[in-house]
Amino acid sequence: MLNPVALARTDEAALPLYQRLAGDYCAAMELGTLKAGERMPSVRELMARHQVSLSTALQMLRFLEGRGHLEARPRVGYFVRELQTGLALTSEPDLSQPVQPNPHAHFVGINEHISLLLERGRQAPAHIDIGGCTPPAELFDHQHLNKTVTRLLREQPMLLAQGRSLLANQGNHPDFQQAMARRALACGIRVAPADVLATTGNSEAVSLALAAVAVPGDMVAVESPTYYGLLQVVESLKLQTLEIPCSPRTGLSIEALELAFQTQPRLKAVVVVPELQMPLGTRMPDEHKARLVALCAQYGAALIEDDSYGLFVEDKQPVRPLKAWDSVSGHVIYCQAFNKSMAPGLRQGWMNGGQWHGRVQMLKFAQSRNTQTLGQLVVAEVLGSPTHLRNLQRLKAQLKSQREAMARLVARYFPLGTRLSLPGGGLCLWLEFPEAMSTASLFTEALVHGIRIAPGSMFSNSGRYEHCMRLACTHPVNAAMEKAIQQLGAMACRQLGQPVRE
Amino acid sequence: MLNPVALARTDEAALPLYQRLAGDYCAAMELGTLKAGERMPSVRELMARHQVSLSTALQMLRFLEGRGHLEARPRVGYFVRELQTGLALTSEPDLSQPVQPNPHAHFVGINEHISLLLERGRQAPAHIDIGGCTPPAELFDHQHLNKTVTRLLREQPMLLAQGRSLLANQGNHPDFQQAMARRALACGIRVAPADVLATTGNSEAVSLALAAVAVPGDMVAVESPTYYGLLQVVESLKLQTLEIPCSPRTGLSIEALELAFQTQPRLKAVVVVPELQMPLGTRMPDEHKARLVALCAQYGAALIEDDSYGLFVEDKQPVRPLKAWDSVSGHVIYCQAFNKSMAPGLRQGWMNGGQWHGRVQMLKFAQSRNTQTLGQLVVAEVLGSPTHLRNLQRLKAQLKSQREAMARLVARYFPLGTRLSLPGGGLCLWLEFPEAMSTASLFTEALVHGIRIAPGSMFSNSGRYEHCMRLACTHPVNAAMEKAIQQLGAMACRQLGQPVRE
Repeated sequence: MLNPVALARTDEAALPLYQRLAGDYCAAMELGTLKAGERMPSVRELMARHQVSLSTALQMLRFLEGRGHLEARPRVGYFVRELQTGLALTSEPDLSQPVQPNPHAHFVGINEHISLLLERGRQAPAHIDIGGCTPPAELFDHQHLNKTVTRLLREQPMLLAQGRSLLANQGNHPDFQQAMARRALACGIRVAPADVLATTGNSEAVSLALAAVAVPGDMVAVESPTYYGLLQVVESLKLQTLEIPCSPRTGLSIEALELAFQTQPRLKAVVVVPELQMPLGTRMPDEHKARLVALCAQYGAALIEDDSYGLFVEDKQPVRPLKAWDSVSGHVIYCQAFNKSMAPGLRQGWMNGGQWHGRVQMLKFAQSRNTQTLGQLVVAEVLGSPTHLRNLQRLKAQLKSQREAMARLVARYFPLGTRLSLPGGGLCLWLEFPEAMSTASLFTEALVHGIRIAPGSMFSNSGRYEHCMRLACTHPVNAAMEKAIQQLGAMACRQLGQPVRE
Repeated sequence: MLNPVALARTDEAALPLYQRLAGDYCAAMELGTLKAGERMPSVRELMARHQVSLSTALQMLRFLEGRGHLEARPRVGYFVRELQTGLALTSEPDLSQPVQPNPHAHFVGINEHISLLLERGRQAPAHIDIGGCTPPAELFDHQHLNKTVTRLLREQPMLLAQGRSLLANQGNHPDFQQAMARRALACGIRVAPADVLATTGNSEAVSLALAAVAVPGDMVAVESPTYYGLLQVVESLKLQTLEIPCSPRTGLSIEALELAFQTQPRLKAVVVVPELQMPLGTRMPDEHKARLVALCAQYGAALIEDDSYGLFVEDKQPVRPLKAWDSVSGHVIYCQAFNKSMAPGLRQGWMNGGQWHGRVQMLKFAQSRNTQTLGQLVVAEVLGSPTHLRNLQRLKAQLKSQREAMARLVARYFPLGTRLSLPGGGLCLWLEFPEAMSTASLFTEALVHGIRIAPGSMFSNSGRYEHCMRLACTHPVNAAMEKAIQQLGAMACRQLGQPVRE
C-alpha cells in the first residue's frame, strides 16, 4: 500500500460533526482498517456506535459517497470503493494565517506566464494531452447536433441571413431565453426569459460580469486554486485578485472571505464555481452556499457564479446553484456555458446579471453586439431533450470511469506522498505532490516526451501550487495513456529522489 | 426646385484644384445651369476651358462620379445624374476653431442616451424602420449560406462537437486564416495567415484593439459624426473620445488631427472608417489615407481601421485600405466584419493587430476564448466565390437604387434647406436639416406614427448633430415607405414652420 498519509485536519474542530466522523472513516480506509469492497456499518449501527442522530449518520454516508469513498448499492447498503485504496485526499488549506492580498502577486502578469506555457506547449509536438480539459469530439452526440442545425435551417431558411434586430431582445432569441429560464427554474432559480442574455461561452460572461461591477484597481476574490482563465480575465480588466483558500471538501473558505471583506474595502466581487470547482472538483455543501450568498449580500458585493460544471454532477439529487438563494437583493450573477457538456464547437452560454443586468446588457451590446442566433437555437432545441439527456449520462459515465482509471494509474506510478482530489464528477483530478516537487520542471521534461501537462502555477498568482498539477481525465485510458502516466510518474519520482515505481 | 444652397466652402482654398473645380460644377448643377441628363464637357474641353492638366480633369470627373453627381456612359462621356437635381450636399465642418476635447462631453453617458433611444424604439410598435442599417434577410443569398453549412457538416461531421484546441492557432481555423490573408493581399495588405484573428463581428474587434492600445483615461480620436456603436465601446472601456471633424468629401480632417496630437498627450489611438464612413458615406481619397497613416506613425499612435464597408464601394477600382500604407511600423490595426455584406446572422469578422497583435490575442483569449469554427469556415468558403460575388453585385445595385429613390423622396418631401450626403455606396444617407430642427423631437413624433429614425444625437457626444439624422436605405422603397417619408417630411416642415410639401 502507498501514501500512508492521514487526512489533513488543520481546521478539524471547526467542521460539523458528520464531517469529523467522515474524517475518521477516511483515515480508517487509508490505514487499511476498512478495505475496498467491505460493507460500511448500517445507519442504525452508526447511530448507536457514535451516539449520533439519524440525520448525522445519513449526512456522513452521503458525504463520503459524494467524495467518492463509498458506493451505495440499492437495498443493501454502503460499500468502500475500490478506487479509494491507498490514495490520500488533497490537503486542506492552512487557515491559521489571515488573508492578505499578496502585493507582489497582483500584477505579475499571469497572462504572460500562461501565454508562455501555452506557447511552449504549442510549439512542441505532443501525442498525449492531459493539460487541456475539453472532452474529445467523440464523446459528444455530433449527429444529433448536425441534424438539429440542418432541420433549423430547413425550417427557418433566413436564419443566417437575418441580423437579429437589436431592438428586439437585444439579439437574444426568445426561444433560447425561454429554454434557459425553464432550465433555471428546475434548479430553483427564478429568472424572467427577458432577463436571459446569450453569451459566447463563459469567459465572455464572467468578463462582462466583472466589468459591470468593478472598476480598474478594485479587488476580486477568487477561489485558490482557480481556473487560470479567470485569472486572465481579472488581469485583462486591470483588477486585483485576492485568492481565498479552498477546502477540497467544502470549497471556498467562508471565514477567510469574511476576513477579507473586513480588511479590504475595494473588494467588490467574488467569483465562485460552486459545483465541481475547477480544478479541485469540490462540491460546495448547500449550507455553505447559503452562508456565502448571505455574506456577500451583507457586504454589498457581487457574487459571480459559474455553473457550467453543475451538469456533470454524478449524484442523482438536483443541483441547487447559489443563485437559488438570491431571492431578494439580486447580487448573484449567474453564468453558464454548454461548451463542455453539449457542443464545444458552438461557444454558446448565457447569463443573468441580477441587479447589474442592465449594465451587463449595455457592455455586451457595446463590446460584441449580440450572439449568433443559430447557436442559441441549437442549444434551445437540444438541452433537456431525451437524446441529450441520454448522451449526457453516457458522457458522465465515461468521464467517471476515466477519472477512476487515471486515479489508479496515479496511485500505481506516482511518487509516495502524492495526494489526489476525488471529485463527484467532472473532467479532471487535482494532484498534490510532496512539497519538494516542481511541476514547472515536470512540464518542461514531459514536453520533451510529447506529454503536455497543466502545472500548478497556472492556477494561482500566489506561487503556492508549484508542487501541484491538474490532470485532465477527458481522454480514454488506453495503453498509450498508461505509458504516459508511467513515464510522468518516473520523472516525478526521479525529481524527488524516490525509486521509480513499476 | 428646392434647396438653393451652394456647396459650403469654408476651407475652399485648402482644397486641391480638382476639388475646387468640382465645387464649381456642383454649384452649376444646383443652380440649374447644368441640368440632369446633360452631357458634361469632355476631358479635352475641360483641359482647355480651365487650363488644367489631363490628370486634374480626370480627377475632377471621377470625384464628381464618386460623389454621385455624374454617371459615366462607356465610350460616350459623363452625364449629370437625375438624382442630383435640387439636392444640396451636406456641409463641410468649420475647421477655423481649434480642436479641443469637450470636457462636458467625455463621460456624459452616451450609452445611457443610446440605450434610452433604443429602449423607447423597442417599446413602440414600428412598421417602418429607417433607423437601423442592416439590410433585410431577403437581400442575402440564404440558400448559398445554408447549403454551405450543410455541406461543411457533412464533410466535417465533428465540427460542432470539437473544441478548437487553444494550443492550435488559438482557435483560429487555418482555412479561415488563409482565406482572409488572401483577400487582404488582393487589397494590398500583407498579413501572414497565422496573424489573422477571428472575431465576433466588428464591435469585438474594435473593442479588443482599443483595450490593447489604451488604458482608462486615455483619449481616442473618432470621426465626427461617427457610428454610435464606437462611442459606446470607447465609453465602456472608460476612455475619452475626441471628435475630429469630418468632411463629407474627404473624411477625417488630417489638419485637425495633427493639432489634436500636438495638444493632447494622452491621445493614443484614432479609429477610422476610411471607405463609406458611417454615417457620412465618405470615401477617403488615397492621398489622405497616406497622410493619415504617416501622421499616426509620427506620433506613435495606433490607427484602428474598420474596413467593413469597403465591400460596398460601387466603383470598379479596387479599394486600398489604410493598412496597405502601413509597411514598416505596424501601427495600423485592421478590422473587418461580414455581417452586412454576407450573413448578418453569422457574426463573423477578423482582425490583425499589427504591432499589438500579441496583446490583442491575449485579450481575446482572456475575454471570450475563441470564435466559433463553423462561422469561420462558412465565411472562408463563401467569400470570393462566384456565387457570392454575383450576390454582392446584386446587393450593391439594389442598395444603390434604394439610396437614389430615398434621396428623391427626401428632395420631394423634406423641408427646404435640407442637405444630403451622396455616398458612392453603402447603406444610408446622412441628412442635415436647417439648424432650427430637433431630430430628437422628430424621433418622438415619428414613433407615434410607427416610424423609427436614428436622430443625429446618436452619432456624437458633442451635441452638434441635433439637426441631423441618418436615413437607412436598406429597405425596398415601396408605397408604404413613400408614405412614411412623406409623413416624416410633413412633421419636419411643421416643426420648422414651413408649409408642408405635397
